[in-house]
Amino acid sequence: TAMVSQGPRLLLLGLLLYVFSPSVSHAGKLLLIPVDGSHWLSMHVIIQQLHQRGHDILVVAPEASVYIEEGSYYTLKKYPVPFQKENVAATFAELGHAVFENNPFLLRVIKTYKKVIRDSALLLSACTHLLQNAPLMTSLQESHFDALLTDPFIPCGTILAQYLALPTVYYLNALPCSLDMKATQCPNPLSYVPKLLSANSDHMSFLQRVKNVLIALTENFLCDVVYSPYAALASEILHKKVTVYDLLSSASIWLLRTDFVKDYPRPIMPNIVFLGGMNCLEKKPISQEFEAYVNASGEHGIVVFSLGSMVSEIPEKKAMEIAEALGRIPQTVLWRYTGSRPSNLAKNTILVKWLPQNDLLGHPKARAFITHSGSHGIYEGICNAVPMVMMPLFGDQMDNAKRMETRGAGVTLNVLEMTADDLENALKAVINDKSYKENVTRLSRLHKDRPIEPLDLAVFWVEFVMRHKGAPHLRPAAHDLTWYQYHSLDVIGFLLAIVLTVVFIVFKCCAYGFRKCFGKKGQVKKTHKSKTH
Amino acid sequence: TAMVSQGPRLLLLGLLLYVFSPSVSHAGKLLLIPVDGSHWLSMHVIIQQLHQRGHDILVVAPEASVYIEEGSYYTLKKYPVPFQKENVAATFAELGHAVFENNPFLLRVIKTYKKVIRDSALLLSACTHLLQNAPLMTSLQESHFDALLTDPFIPCGTILAQYLALPTVYYLNALPCSLDMKATQCPNPLSYVPKLLSANSDHMSFLQRVKNVLIALTENFLCDVVYSPYAALASEILHKKVTVYDLLSSASIWLLRTDFVKDYPRPIMPNIVFLGGMNCLEKKPISQEFEAYVNASGEHGIVVFSLGSMVSEIPEKKAMEIAEALGRIPQTVLWRYTGSRPSNLAKNTILVKWLPQNDLLGHPKARAFITHSGSHGIYEGICNAVPMVMMPLFGDQMDNAKRMETRGAGVTLNVLEMTADDLENALKAVINDKSYKENVTRLSRLHKDRPIEPLDLAVFWVEFVMRHKGAPHLRPAAHDLTWYQYHSLDVIGFLLAIVLTVVFIVFKCCAYGFRKCFGKKGQVKKTHKSKTH
Repeated sequence: TAMVSQGPRLLLLGLLLYVFSPSVSHAGKLLLIPVDGSHWLSMHVIIQQLHQRGHDILVVAPEASVYIEEGSYYTLKKYPVPFQKENVAATFAELGHAVFENNPFLLRVIKTYKKVIRDSALLLSACTHLLQNAPLMTSLQESHFDALLTDPFIPCGTILAQYLALPTVYYLNALPCSLDMKATQCPNPLSYVPKLLSANSDHMSFLQRVKNVLIALTENFLCDVVYSPYAALASEILHKKVTVYDLLSSASIWLLRTDFVKDYPRPIMPNIVFLGGMNCLEKKPISQEFEAYVNASGEHGIVVFSLGSMVSEIPEKKAMEIAEALGRIPQTVLWRYTGSRPSNLAKNTILVKWLPQNDLLGHPKARAFITHSGSHGIYEGICNAVPMVMMPLFGDQMDNAKRMETRGAGVTLNVLEMTADDLENALKAVINDKSYKENVTRLSRLHKDRPIEPLDLAVFWVEFVMRHKGAPHLRPAAHDLTWYQYHSLDVIGFLLAIVLTVVFIVFKCCAYGFRKCFGKKGQVKKTHKSKTH
Repeated sequence: TAMVSQGPRLLLLGLLLYVFSPSVSHAGKLLLIPVDGSHWLSMHVIIQQLHQRGHDILVVAPEASVYIEEGSYYTLKKYPVPFQKENVAATFAELGHAVFENNPFLLRVIKTYKKVIRDSALLLSACTHLLQNAPLMTSLQESHFDALLTDPFIPCGTILAQYLALPTVYYLNALPCSLDMKATQCPNPLSYVPKLLSANSDHMSFLQRVKNVLIALTENFLCDVVYSPYAALASEILHKKVTVYDLLSSASIWLLRTDFVKDYPRPIMPNIVFLGGMNCLEKKPISQEFEAYVNASGEHGIVVFSLGSMVSEIPEKKAMEIAEALGRIPQTVLWRYTGSRPSNLAKNTILVKWLPQNDLLGHPKARAFITHSGSHGIYEGICNAVPMVMMPLFGDQMDNAKRMETRGAGVTLNVLEMTADDLENALKAVINDKSYKENVTRLSRLHKDRPIEPLDLAVFWVEFVMRHKGAPHLRPAAHDLTWYQYHSLDVIGFLLAIVLTVVFIVFKCCAYGFRKCFGKKGQVKKTHKSKTH
């Protein structure tokens, strides 16, 4: 007998829900405080969906935003800040440039640290100018939103939510320094949960575990520099002393753009919802221009190449090396690149300013995907089951690459050190060695086999928080404990004290009893002894 | 604008899935090893659903089973055991009787312990006779099942799964002694996760936390008595040394019949799926007999009273006390009771051998629910938003009652100590004090507002394990660590050793340097001093 597929059941469920759903529920009002850059870009799909479901969405962003622009499915309100769009654009451009500056390790650490200090001062200044903008604050207060949606990477929206007393939904990839785990009271065993930016897997050698612990011990320093000013700002605005954890832990629901096909299984909390691969199923037909390229590629098919939206150009020498390697494979390469055209570009390589990445990867002729291994790209690679050659540049990209590599779905290259030969070999490996395709196909099957689509899940939980004014039933009681209570140190101390007291009393009693029984003899001896002196 | 409800979207999703779902996927073969009693009864709804989706289900149970009988949606295979159905029935009856034996605490502990020893010997004997039944084992081996579904409360199905090398899905309420948490590597902070049978809430006083820790320290003793024989049996059958944790941790998916409206939020693991309230939405029209009772109740409405399927009669004196209290309220009471009729039964109280509990609770005239607070009853109370008077008898019922009480959804009575007045007051409180109805209605709204129905989720994960032959991507790497590695004790020791070595070397160097600089002077002084003697 043929197995009844999930379809009819869901169809019936949909019908039932449609018939029985309350017909006069009103649209909600949602306040959205985004983070500029790729963080904002990854929010589009959920905003669009919420708009389609009838909600009014107000996006509040600094005038100097680079990526945040007017859109058809939300209202944008910009507020003045004492810097220009060009300043922000420069910080994004630096991100890409810094990758290709082949500086010694210590110099890179210092440069990165200085950049973090500079950038976070800019971001903090923007946040201050939002929260101290009295007319804007009044207008937001009078708008009576149902909930606030924000990316807590910059905890400005978090402070605003507290100020406006709005239930909050977070939408994020991850927070640095395990701030997300700490703020959700989520246990985070260092022995098998790799730290962000460690490039460790979940199976670590002894020295990798040492590295994991060392990162955990030192990361708070950098995070304090970035995040503690927000605690100070919040304390001022809210007229009460708050810490970064107080701020972050106020969220009702954490929507994490990850899943356990990409990430390693680890403890989670009931108010964390996993949305990995949310934008992958949305497929549009490929435009005529790209269709022509794909058709012309013949039996060899195509390779899709993009280093993401944040890196626009790379040094000429590196670009030429890459171009040389691409010329050595029989596939047609579609390379998204906005820098100047490398002089040695081969005929099989087509430079484009933009490409429909997910649609191209979904084409049966896609043979490999050269990616900077940002989380979006990784999910599009998994979803479409295309083996990957990964060139991680910054942030969590190294971790993403490690995850795919340990699962045999791709090859990682060091973009600084790699030669044309390395890239050529990596490409030929993932295209010709069937294991890569098999592994990524297995991952793809697991990833896409889920009881509910992540986008529906995201919309459900945002609306849940709007309907119920939060999700207090998912808040663990751990938030109400001190650190020593959480670890039961006071109880252990108390029990130890009892045990020691009992041991002491028993010992004393025994000693006393011993003295009573044998004491006189001993005393006599003692007296006798002292007399002999 | 009116908010677009969840309905059309799910309808569309259903349609899409229906259109795109693979049409020629084959039905699966599922082996089911149940646990007799209420554990088996709670499995019906999922077996029925799996059968409707075209799967063949083979239930294997001892000949002496009391509740496990032939059914239309599965094949039953019984195997001989050296005891009778009557013996098993007696152990169930004892459960109910023991509750009403008002023995002193120590005697009750001893009696309970003896009963556990006796019952578990019976269960172990059944398991041994299954696993050593060579023809049955061969026939199961030759049947090539896709997966095994079992309740690990008795880990017999777990051993069989290992023997047949079948991917396993667990379906359970909870395991004693936190075996479920240990086997899933789920962190379980004693400071806010109340131990089973502790009747603690998630907000504990210092002494309650001491109790929680003491239970954790001592519970392993009782569990070892019950569970370690299965490890011995498994080691013999599988020809390798295995522990209870090895056995239990082999499951791919843990389907837990709980949710975070009833239970307190706590750390969870990615392979734990929460199904609380699975059987609540299935509503049938009430039969003519009960409809007549309900209609005759007038404006006062009805009270539904059941102590569950496992307790058939209570001592006469207690029954008369209860009957007296019931006679004092204006509501019509529908009492499921199979014992002899109390002589003082009032006119408003109707004794029935069975009642459609969920359907009656769903009736708008239901005013209160008197329940033993088994998890099924609690979920039916929550789902239908009926305030509860709870008389916990054994097992997790005390914990369930505590959970509902802390949320203001009902009143708990001690069935041994309560008087007719107590029951009368409790009933009048939950019926007349609006806060109970409000609280249970709020819980009900939260409980029923979910992105996917728990029954669909259960079926999805069983089929997921059948499709993918397990769910290895959800298995945490913690299973591959020793306890000291898990807690990073080796790393901490290593780092401490380094720090101490460095401190030692620095100290020695300083001491040496100090001697070099000031040493001669000191020596001179010393020499000088010694000369003066």
